[in-house]
Amino acid sequence: MSNQKPLNVGLVGYGFMGRTHSNAYGKVNQFFDLDRRPVLKAVCGRNESNVKAFAERWGYQSTETDWHKLLSRSDIDLVDIATPNDSHAEIAIAAAKAGKMVMCEKPLGRNPAEATRMVAAVENARTPNMVWYNYRRVPAVTLAKQIIDEGRLGKIFHYRAKFLQDWTISKDLPQGGAGLWRLDASVSGSGVTGDLLAHCIDTAIWLNGPIQSVTGATETFIKERHHNLSGKIERVTIDDASAFLARFDNGALATFEATRYARGHKALYTLEINGENASIFWDLHDLHRLRYFDHRDEGRLRGWRSLLITDGDHPYMKHWWVPGLQIGYEHTFIHQVADFLEGLRTGQAAAPTFRDALATDLVTDAVLRSAKSGRWETVGRG
Amino acid sequence: MSNQKPLNVGLVGYGFMGRTHSNAYGKVNQFFDLDRRPVLKAVCGRNESNVKAFAERWGYQSTETDWHKLLSRSDIDLVDIATPNDSHAEIAIAAAKAGKMVMCEKPLGRNPAEATRMVAAVENARTPNMVWYNYRRVPAVTLAKQIIDEGRLGKIFHYRAKFLQDWTISKDLPQGGAGLWRLDASVSGSGVTGDLLAHCIDTAIWLNGPIQSVTGATETFIKERHHNLSGKIERVTIDDASAFLARFDNGALATFEATRYARGHKALYTLEINGENASIFWDLHDLHRLRYFDHRDEGRLRGWRSLLITDGDHPYMKHWWVPGLQIGYEHTFIHQVADFLEGLRTGQAAAPTFRDALATDLVTDAVLRSAKSGRWETVGRG
Amino acid sequence: MSNQKPLNVGLVGYGFMGRTHSNAYGKVNQFFDLDRRPVLKAVCGRNESNVKAFAERWGYQSTETDWHKLLSRSDIDLVDIATPNDSHAEIAIAAAKAGKMVMCEKPLGRNPAEATRMVAAVENARTPNMVWYNYRRVPAVTLAKQIIDEGRLGKIFHYRAKFLQDWTISKDLPQGGAGLWRLDASVSGSGVTGDLLAHCIDTAIWLNGPIQSVTGATETFIKERHHNLSGKIERVTIDDASAFLARFDNGALATFEATRYARGHKALYTLEINGENASIFWDLHDLHRLRYFDHRDEGRLRGWRSLLITDGDHPYMKHWWVPGLQIGYEHTFIHQVADFLEGLRTGQAAAPTFRDALATDLVTDAVLRSAKSGRWETVGRG
Amino acid sequence: MSNQKPLNVGLVGYGFMGRTHSNAYGKVNQFFDLDRRPVLKAVCGRNESNVKAFAERWGYQSTETDWHKLLSRSDIDLVDIATPNDSHAEIAIAAAKAGKMVMCEKPLGRNPAEATRMVAAVENARTPNMVWYNYRRVPAVTLAKQIIDEGRLGKIFHYRAKFLQDWTISKDLPQGGAGLWRLDASVSGSGVTGDLLAHCIDTAIWLNGPIQSVTGATETFIKERHHNLSGKIERVTIDDASAFLARFDNGALATFEATRYARGHKALYTLEINGENASIFWDLHDLHRLRYFDHRDEGRLRGWRSLLITDGDHPYMKHWWVPGLQIGYEHTFIHQVADFLEGLRTGQAAAPTFRDALATDLVTDAVLRSAKSGRWETVGRG
Repeated sequence: MSNQKPLNVGLVGYGFMGRTHSNAYGKVNQFFDLDRRPVLKAVCGRNESNVKAFAERWGYQSTETDWHKLLSRSDIDLVDIATPNDSHAEIAIAAAKAGKMVMCEKPLGRNPAEATRMVAAVENARTPNMVWYNYRRVPAVTLAKQIIDEGRLGKIFHYRAKFLQDWTISKDLPQGGAGLWRLDASVSGSGVTGDLLAHCIDTAIWLNGPIQSVTGATETFIKERHHNLSGKIERVTIDDASAFLARFDNGALATFEATRYARGHKALYTLEINGENASIFWDLHDLHRLRYFDHRDEGRLRGWRSLLITDGDHPYMKHWWVPGLQIGYEHTFIHQVADFLEGLRTGQAAAPTFRDALATDLVTDAVLRSAKSGRWETVGRG
Repeated sequence: MSNQKPLNVGLVGYGFMGRTHSNAYGKVNQFFDLDRRPVLKAVCGRNESNVKAFAERWGYQSTETDWHKLLSRSDIDLVDIATPNDSHAEIAIAAAKAGKMVMCEKPLGRNPAEATRMVAAVENARTPNMVWYNYRRVPAVTLAKQIIDEGRLGKIFHYRAKFLQDWTISKDLPQGGAGLWRLDASVSGSGVTGDLLAHCIDTAIWLNGPIQSVTGATETFIKERHHNLSGKIERVTIDDASAFLARFDNGALATFEATRYARGHKALYTLEINGENASIFWDLHDLHRLRYFDHRDEGRLRGWRSLLITDGDHPYMKHWWVPGLQIGYEHTFIHQVADFLEGLRTGQAAAPTFRDALATDLVTDAVLRSAKSGRWETVGRG
Repeated sequence: MSNQKPLNVGLVGYGFMGRTHSNAYGKVNQFFDLDRRPVLKAVCGRNESNVKAFAERWGYQSTETDWHKLLSRSDIDLVDIATPNDSHAEIAIAAAKAGKMVMCEKPLGRNPAEATRMVAAVENARTPNMVWYNYRRVPAVTLAKQIIDEGRLGKIFHYRAKFLQDWTISKDLPQGGAGLWRLDASVSGSGVTGDLLAHCIDTAIWLNGPIQSVTGATETFIKERHHNLSGKIERVTIDDASAFLARFDNGALATFEATRYARGHKALYTLEINGENASIFWDLHDLHRLRYFDHRDEGRLRGWRSLLITDGDHPYMKHWWVPGLQIGYEHTFIHQVADFLEGLRTGQAAAPTFRDALATDLVTDAVLRSAKSGRWETVGRG
Repeated sequence: MSNQKPLNVGLVGYGFMGRTHSNAYGKVNQFFDLDRRPVLKAVCGRNESNVKAFAERWGYQSTETDWHKLLSRSDIDLVDIATPNDSHAEIAIAAAKAGKMVMCEKPLGRNPAEATRMVAAVENARTPNMVWYNYRRVPAVTLAKQIIDEGRLGKIFHYRAKFLQDWTISKDLPQGGAGLWRLDASVSGSGVTGDLLAHCIDTAIWLNGPIQSVTGATETFIKERHHNLSGKIERVTIDDASAFLARFDNGALATFEATRYARGHKALYTLEINGENASIFWDLHDLHRLRYFDHRDEGRLRGWRSLLITDGDHPYMKHWWVPGLQIGYEHTFIHQVADFLEGLRTGQAAAPTFRDALATDLVTDAVLRSAKSGRWETVGRG
């Protein structure tokens, strides 16, 4: 292991996502055998005392309060962007120009225009890049991908996904500022469409191919909220809920829905695919289970199988404990770092790249356009 | 019981639904104390030997092969229509004109025009009438209605329903004729929209009020099938799958979906309602369970409650066995007859009446219109 | 159907079980094609007005208030005993001597001595006989039997069953008399051992063969209750809870438990069998599901299958509705009558016979003996 | 954080448990605010190259190949024993004598004699000590303890636990040596009784108080296996399966079972408690769920609540992510280290101490004695 080549990481942003990424960099070499080792060189944030405390807790060797400075450092190989959405494009484009590898939180941009420029930047710089759509790397979801790639489902008729939360139902919840920027569209780009549906769409395109067209509806249930930055009651600019019907290139008819007003659900991301021969269902609240129905099973004994994805031959699981013992949310980030590092070794970029993530932004854009036009909208191709 | 006044029933049609209705008439007085007793006077069907065999098995006192004759009989109080959809309107209108009470299988008509004429007929005749949307009377669904009427959910944000089957996936399945008329739109009116979504819509309007507008999509996965009546390969005229987004009068945003191409699901009718204070979920495959989440429960101990609806204080259940013991599909029809008879006694018509069922036809019509127009369509008001 | 030979039934007892049996006799020919048709000749009970009301509701042609008289009637073919346990032996033995076919509610006797005499009576009389262990004929349980008989499980390591209720937790519940004789051991023989464990044991022997030895424990949580017949507070004589470990002839190690003090469970009868190659799990509260795990499934895709037992190729289900639609508790009794009638035709007695039911009484007896001795007790062989 | 006082850890053993402990020491200060920080001073194992590789991977500053040497080092505060069971006693007693804090993997000893000496050693040395019964610190299990301590269950009638695995069914699996010492009783003390039932018993005593007496049965399904150390076929000395009935001091009647022959289950540890007012159920395969039934809920709306234990007010969860997002198996060890460190600060020893773990060894001993004697055995009091 002493032969592992360091990969010097500079993290921008130290909020919720900063923690998940830092944890991933710290754990990955203990559980995966890799030829690279992330080294936590620097973390960057505007509040100096906060960023120093974060650095000490997570073991970063230094801190910065200006991301331009971080990008100018020659001891940084990878710039990891874990800031609110409104700075993704600027930082990512600058990082690419500075010749850094770039990882970016999702959604890639606040809109396809931003995302398109970000793709151009990393592709022009020919630098490794990746977007943190972490749910692809829940072992059960990765197994779903393998099952599909093996052709077990046959022709696909239906795709169905939803992401249900209930944390913004209270009228007293303010919008804006730290922790609540997701409720301010000027920062986030949109509400649940870009925050939650984006996850559903990323997985869907990965598992079921391109989405052709959509018809959608959004709703903002609570129209005004106190804004933490202005200190005033302001109009809520995000979508609280968003649903759409879609047609995939492969002919599948789909339904998608996300909301933060589904009382009783915390992070209920579910997906289902119905094929001619077999179907798959997965649920983030029961993340180690993959439900699989195979019509080719003997008739009387056909049924949805509840696969407990903890065995050594399941994706990623040989790196963890023993059959029956579970991992959690944070591990998806560790898997992503492992795959990114492995991609550097093999030269085969690990997905989703910026270009992959642009495809998701193009779908969320079509959804938001349709919600305004009241018509089916064609999804742009990046 | 000897004091029970007879209600003379004439059944038209002796297929799958003829069995469920006959069973209901035969059982209702053994489990419910009522002042009326259905008497199986006559069953009518075109094939004489088949209809006689049916009559013998179920205890009908006589048979007819022409429904006009049945309607002309003075010993018939109630005409019950269990035929394919293309004869609902003609028989129901004639029965109402003949002064009979009328019960009719769902959907009411093949389209709103037929249904509107049927409503006019029974209302002009001022005769008791009802449509067999049986799922309202699954005890768990009836309890859901009670919970909602008690105001426990608060403002409603979301309604979500689907009805998934998989029985028409094979290309070798023919269309048309006995048992397969549901695949021929000239008989059925539409495919899953009128057959399955109609159930979802009836329950939804009952639980959550009128639907204002919809945007939908339909799909016919298999374009041609052998037609049993013509003996030729013919274009498939029905929708195999149908999905729509909806807005309710109460502001809720909804998703609906039905298909016969969801591999692994037999009759998976599920519904969920998310309110400000509480949510409800139900599933036909687990029909005795109602899932209920109440946000007013103490914080650490909040969770979805799995209510096993078999206690004496649950709707209908005191008439059956003891707590923990289940009833099934057929009992919903028995409950409907019991409520119809009780409605005769009290003068309060049991729902859904023809007028209630017209409301459902108006929604399915808007869905089919939207699937063609690609736009949101306003639901007609009957 | 007019060719069906009548089978004249005389029912003794018109309580909860009287209803389930009467319902079964009335429905069986509507759903099963059989060469015999039960005719409800007479019902017998001590309270004349009650028994007349019951007869009218269920369609019995006559009533008796003395069972001896019923047995002496030449127009009765089958005597069906649905009385409390303390009269099973006397009536059954007399009925056999009178040359009647005999069906009897479970448990067969209050103890092996009674049961042994009952077996002798029917075997000496060479008359058809059966005991109403109805849970064998839940379609999912019958399928379990088929799966086992096909050898799919391999060598059996474990059997696990429990039957949990919670209806006697209140100290205010009295014992004795109508509806509560199950709490008086002089009538019932024992508490949950004979009432609930007997069901578990009957299924277990059917599915897994003879039980060799047991070690058990019983508990009476509430020591005294008001007795409805004496009008006094009296010592409770039954076991409120009963658990035992067992060894089967086939080498399986087993656990069994029943109680009426498991808060939250109404009639939670569950059973599980673990074999070398496959396992099975079933639960009465979800009675249409059979869970099946087959280790021979491809490794990554192995999982417990949730079989929804509603298809036409599942036991009994072709007689009912269509796939996905459920039946309930009462149907197990209809299945039992159908099989009994079919057994008359073929000459192959349908199980469980009195002799089969004696085997269960011998196990419950060993459990009760062990609960007193504190040692393993060998199960008697009848 | 720079003020955190170091706690110098010396780990003995670097197998499966060595990994879980090392991970816990490394993560605890990133997620918990504590005044102590574990420092990975040394890891000890007999194979020098292996132990060095482990040290490098996990960040230990040094290695030892003789545990006596580790104990003699003045720079070690805490000796953590993660070796096979046959060296627990010797190392722990020596460590206590050397004045070290001691943590030890479960079960404490191979038998009560060993465990008793270990308790004496740490108590004589008055040194902090703890045993790694990690499942107490699954957040859902900790919440169960809180619910019980709040008196919500009322008088307890039943306790029910099982731990089912299926990894030793193959006859070709050898026994003995690295990774398989659990199949050799001379090393492990016993089979599933000490390995799996010990977990169930530790939790049970914690949640429900002392166990008074037991009657048990064990089984060794495969009698002979190749032994990896001797190279010969040898008699299998462990119990493959173990089940027992128990009576608690509080009057509850209990069933316990563990096996490695339950086809289809990987690590299915389940527990249920039935009280007069409420019941609790938990399952390791669905570890974030606590099922809770409260009879005081309004009648019609009573049901088992499925609590998703991911909220900030649930035990330990505020240290992790956001509601709905899960943690896994390894986190229970992190929680245990956090509580141990917090115990050092407050002077209130975190449980389970060696003395607590002795109580479990006394129950497993009584189970094994009963399995031989065929009688109820009284549980010794330490």
